[in-house]
Amino acid sequence: MSPQAYGFLHERFARIGAISGAISVLDWDSQTMMPKGGAEARAEQLAVLSVLHHEAISADDFPDLLDRAEEETLSDWQSANLREMRRMHRHATAMDPGLVDAFSRATSECEHAWREARADDDFATVLPLLETVIDLVRDQAAAKADALEVAPYDALIDMYEPGGSSQKIDHLFAPLADRLPEILQRVLERQSESPTPVVPQGPFDAGRQKELAHRLMTTLGFEFEHGRVDVSAHPFCGGTSDDVRLTTRFDETDFTSAVMAVIHETGHAMYERGLPPEWRGQPVGTARGMAVHESQSLMFEMQACRDNGFIEFLAPLTKQVFGGEGADWGADNLHRLTTKVERGLIRVDADEVTYPLHVMLRYRLESALLDRSLAPADLPGAWREGMAELVGAAPPDDRDGCMQDIHWYAGAFGYFPTYTMGALAAAQLFQAAKRADPGIPEALSRGDFTGLLAWAREKVHRWGSYHTTDDLLQAATGAPLGEDAFLAHLEERYLG
Amino acid sequence: MSPQAYGFLHERFARIGAISGAISVLDWDSQTMMPKGGAEARAEQLAVLSVLHHEAISADDFPDLLDRAEEETLSDWQSANLREMRRMHRHATAMDPGLVDAFSRATSECEHAWREARADDDFATVLPLLETVIDLVRDQAAAKADALEVAPYDALIDMYEPGGSSQKIDHLFAPLADRLPEILQRVLERQSESPTPVVPQGPFDAGRQKELAHRLMTTLGFEFEHGRVDVSAHPFCGGTSDDVRLTTRFDETDFTSAVMAVIHETGHAMYERGLPPEWRGQPVGTARGMAVHESQSLMFEMQACRDNGFIEFLAPLTKQVFGGEGADWGADNLHRLTTKVERGLIRVDADEVTYPLHVMLRYRLESALLDRSLAPADLPGAWREGMAELVGAAPPDDRDGCMQDIHWYAGAFGYFPTYTMGALAAAQLFQAAKRADPGIPEALSRGDFTGLLAWAREKVHRWGSYHTTDDLLQAATGAPLGEDAFLAHLEERYLG
Repeated sequence: MSPQAYGFLHERFARIGAISGAISVLDWDSQTMMPKGGAEARAEQLAVLSVLHHEAISADDFPDLLDRAEEETLSDWQSANLREMRRMHRHATAMDPGLVDAFSRATSECEHAWREARADDDFATVLPLLETVIDLVRDQAAAKADALEVAPYDALIDMYEPGGSSQKIDHLFAPLADRLPEILQRVLERQSESPTPVVPQGPFDAGRQKELAHRLMTTLGFEFEHGRVDVSAHPFCGGTSDDVRLTTRFDETDFTSAVMAVIHETGHAMYERGLPPEWRGQPVGTARGMAVHESQSLMFEMQACRDNGFIEFLAPLTKQVFGGEGADWGADNLHRLTTKVERGLIRVDADEVTYPLHVMLRYRLESALLDRSLAPADLPGAWREGMAELVGAAPPDDRDGCMQDIHWYAGAFGYFPTYTMGALAAAQLFQAAKRADPGIPEALSRGDFTGLLAWAREKVHRWGSYHTTDDLLQAATGAPLGEDAFLAHLEERYLG
Repeated sequence: MSPQAYGFLHERFARIGAISGAISVLDWDSQTMMPKGGAEARAEQLAVLSVLHHEAISADDFPDLLDRAEEETLSDWQSANLREMRRMHRHATAMDPGLVDAFSRATSECEHAWREARADDDFATVLPLLETVIDLVRDQAAAKADALEVAPYDALIDMYEPGGSSQKIDHLFAPLADRLPEILQRVLERQSESPTPVVPQGPFDAGRQKELAHRLMTTLGFEFEHGRVDVSAHPFCGGTSDDVRLTTRFDETDFTSAVMAVIHETGHAMYERGLPPEWRGQPVGTARGMAVHESQSLMFEMQACRDNGFIEFLAPLTKQVFGGEGADWGADNLHRLTTKVERGLIRVDADEVTYPLHVMLRYRLESALLDRSLAPADLPGAWREGMAELVGAAPPDDRDGCMQDIHWYAGAFGYFPTYTMGALAAAQLFQAAKRADPGIPEALSRGDFTGLLAWAREKVHRWGSYHTTDDLLQAATGAPLGEDAFLAHLEERYLG
């Protein structure tokens, strides 16, 4: 007998998945194609689709169906799907409608104010709104903690990294805090002994950069039958698994930023594309979480494509596409350029050595904001102190300080740690891939990604949300997520 | 006291309107941006949104709410909105779910088979599927006739032209059948006395054609803050009123086809854009129907832009954009080219003199198919006979005969007459506009559309679905829809 309750749930989630897909495409359109004047109508469309999504996922009969399905005879994948259904349902119903509404309004207002406040370097204006948001995030965390039966901050993390917890993060971040400052210092000393890398002479025509993007995406295995690349203010990867849409932006004075952004987003895209096709639209068929997602973008961008080997392939290609001449176009300079480390102020521009330090600051501060050991009004000062301590560079203003990231102003607490978990996972996975297929580094230096991609598909992509992050890492690499591979990678690339 | 039941309905329809808007944008995306491999996921998204739309519009409490709202004190616009809500609800609930499903499957299968049958000129293959579709269209007509309390064929017309009927169509078409063959004969004789127009020497670069499209759209009043133009296999106008998206295609051997297609679609776009902003998303805020919609595209394309005056403006512009040389680029040749009349086989390529004859053939045949006086198997022969009689040219095959149009194979019966109703309305409205503002023709010859657009906004666009088509025409032109202005226009342009 086929599992009846589970069957109902499967159908419901197929519908929910289709609504998510529609939202994703409309969101992509908002950022790439939509004329300005369409914003209001689009906001209405997205709001209505979100309500329909929420209504579908929080239907009254869900708890009963979930319980009945639990008693049915299910395959392992169906069981994993049921587990993820329950998680989604719990998140969707944890907050009462009044709180959902208040949260949505407050974050939308605060995010809007943040854009202006940041431009004006005026933290005081946005502070009261941020205080309201933080109060509501505490309510959100409490409500989700009840529903998920975990600690409040862990309930927030679970939205982005299912099963994540501050305990796990502390465990991962402690050795980084211990080792990174010293590694950073040594790397800077080492790099000061080499010639300063230079960006080859531009300008770099956007059309040529787009051509280069196409060629690199094809090299990495991207199928244009199932996706596209366009331009948006901030690079992202959207769409659906069979229609993956990534974006980039072209800086006519420096082609490397778009190159690395395209490779990064293609890593995300390959993950989406490689999710299990037989589970499209079902919870278990979606990406495991932001840490694993980021591991796939970083495995391509940081591990594979900033490696000396791939740079040997990339340098002549860029030279050819832009018709460049001279030593600045050589692999040596390009490698130094793409692995340059510095004590910078801005997280999104940070190299892989300092990036975790930026993230650790945010993790420390958001934890303190939530447990009230830091008042929002004291955030600018705490930011400057933390930056000086961790990165060794303090911002002269709040624009490039505590107002540089949208996350908190948009109500996203618990997200930042996933960037560094992703970086650790990327190193650990890439190490395992090379162990399994020792020909990978040489293949990459020929622009051949088939081995790496096949391994990632087999060990990561095709599992969707079947495993927990820990189980996925364990199965793929033989160990749970840790910092060893990452630290070894830094030692090898920067100090070897 | 504010009208409570009406208020509920208003909110419901705001949601329904947002779902429609989302569908419209996703449909646009399917035809312009989507990679091939995204088709299956997109079909699923659109199917789910259609179901949600249908569920919302056929909710059980609707009849009661509609009845209660009927008793409330409403403004004229609210009353008109309520009337349109009822019409939409009736259409949505007329067919039982089994029929909806059978209809959707049969038309989808038949449309798919038609594409191949047409390519192979093989009517026999698609015939059984067409027979099934016609049977189901009869069921659809019967169900909708019950719900709307009108005759079956009129219920089909009502989907495209609310309030339309075969009686009204017969009344409009009789004088055309009477006069057009003779006018056509005289026009052909007259044109045979002038030099044969020639397409200037190409090729015409797609980029330049796109530039020309942008300039013409801006000339016509299109706001790129609220819309865009892209390329698709078949030109159409989609999106929403605040984000109007039209498409065209570029033929590198003949720029005039894209020019006229862009003008035509811009006419549709200006109507969508000019719909009453305070009624966005509500039934009364949508376009009145296909006849009025077509009147706006044809008022721009056929009435204003194929006029000698505008051609005087257009000729030097095209010459400049393409860097053309010689007499072929002059206004004389361009005017002859854009008003050339011929006994052609294909409706979509037809000039304005023969177009109604193509439509009358389809109207005659679809009526006969539905009342069983014509068997589907006899369609090819009836088509050839009808073409010979009406247009004076019979197709050598079915590809360019009864398989040239998608409509019937997709289950759309009752649509064709709206093309000619639109052409009649375009002539009548343009005549009224010139009467109200005699400066319009001279302004058009300077590429100044502000007067014509202002008149159309005031008399047509801003009314949405407030009036019936007849009332709209009466209010705008002082008379109900008729054939006089159209016939006078033909006499003046082609025989004057």
